[in-house]
Amino acid sequence: MGMTDVRRPRADRARQVADVLRREILYGRFRQGALPLEGVLAREFGASRNTVREALGLLREEGLVDRVPGVGTTVAGEKYPHGLHKLLGLAETLREHGEVTNEVRTMSVIVPPAAVAERLRLPPGEQVVYLERLRSLNGLPLSLDLTYLVREVGEPLFDADLTCNDIFVLLEGIAGQPLGMAELTLEAVNADPHTAAVLAVPRGSALLMVERLAHLADGRPVDLEFIRFRGDRLTMRGHLRRDQEED
Amino acid sequence: MGMTDVRRPRADRARQVADVLRREILYGRFRQGALPLEGVLAREFGASRNTVREALGLLREEGLVDRVPGVGTTVAGEKYPHGLHKLLGLAETLREHGEVTNEVRTMSVIVPPAAVAERLRLPPGEQVVYLERLRSLNGLPLSLDLTYLVREVGEPLFDADLTCNDIFVLLEGIAGQPLGMAELTLEAVNADPHTAAVLAVPRGSALLMVERLAHLADGRPVDLEFIRFRGDRLTMRGHLRRDQEED
Repeated sequence: MGMTDVRRPRADRARQVADVLRREILYGRFRQGALPLEGVLAREFGASRNTVREALGLLREEGLVDRVPGVGTTVAGEKYPHGLHKLLGLAETLREHGEVTNEVRTMSVIVPPAAVAERLRLPPGEQVVYLERLRSLNGLPLSLDLTYLVREVGEPLFDADLTCNDIFVLLEGIAGQPLGMAELTLEAVNADPHTAAVLAVPRGSALLMVERLAHLADGRPVDLEFIRFRGDRLTMRGHLRRDQEED
Repeated sequence: MGMTDVRRPRADRARQVADVLRREILYGRFRQGALPLEGVLAREFGASRNTVREALGLLREEGLVDRVPGVGTTVAGEKYPHGLHKLLGLAETLREHGEVTNEVRTMSVIVPPAAVAERLRLPPGEQVVYLERLRSLNGLPLSLDLTYLVREVGEPLFDADLTCNDIFVLLEGIAGQPLGMAELTLEAVNADPHTAAVLAVPRGSALLMVERLAHLADGRPVDLEFIRFRGDRLTMRGHLRRDQEED
């Protein structure tokens, strides 16, 4: 029996084929840019040409491939891997893929809402530095980051080069110690119209949303970020262990 | 200075407020179900009522809150936390939130495509067990899982109760050893029409897509899964360390 069972709806079979192809695209099987012809893929997957065509249509809708009649199917744009195995800044984790630049959209000293103060273990009314950046890789928008920093490490950033540096690296220099642990919450959300415009994606595009509270090695929380990554440009990759201790 | 600067576009200020409120909703600040009145939130956030109204509108679009004129804003539906700190099955990680049930959509022995065989370290042509499940929490669809299992651990599953059990737990019983490490790739994707229908979400809804290859403790890869979680029902939560060894 081949990969797919004709008694199942074609949409189910197409999704099954698309998922394996997505994986191969993400991990660089088609580095030359072109995917095999539909007939070749059909044989490889033990699926009908109609199923393969529908699978390629799903990947085109996701923005992973382009399809040109008479030419074929090509990989549309690179999707970059953000390390999820350790705490890394964007420029650090994407170093081999190109240059990360940051456009500072706003930066100011503010009194944060109670929820932010509490996360940063600050007394009510204590000020923080608020920073908003549009981050790009090789000139293409990748993420929109909203950042709250405790003043001690945040204020020196007014004099730093925020365009070309990760906050993490700058913070470690200012604090004179490395970062330690970060708490992370990950979600998939649809881009609202204004965010879509900022990130240059269609309205409703899937975004990978990350809320991350980073602590210094000594345990103090110093950096609270709300990050929206373009879903069509970024994946997260890491490892999990079954025997990890609960903490 | 308050939370937000009136010289910035209101959409930027609304996003800033929405992100903090989202965090508070996800972590249970409004367990009674009702959010404070707009005027109260405006004071708390140092923002205008119009900005707060727009922020609440963003959260309503995400399906996080309902807004009823004259009644106010209420939390719309629970969003469940999937542990990202260790390798856990869905029923295991959501135990305190209710009952996970699985509808087996298809299950058969197939010859997988080369990419799947390679991931599972199987020679070309060797068969695997393919399994597709719609997984629900308390009767509400949560994820659609496409699973490839090596035959040794997959075939005994034809006689197992797949409706009420995580594959992980069943596999460990069959293999007589615990699982070890899993490789993980995370993406945000928009639901295609057919997947949207299966998961009972609007077309284009943001999904959290996970590809996960789980190994037994002895290092053999046995379980390759492609999972689509509903973005409106699930978050992933974990920790990262700055000093994690590369591997």
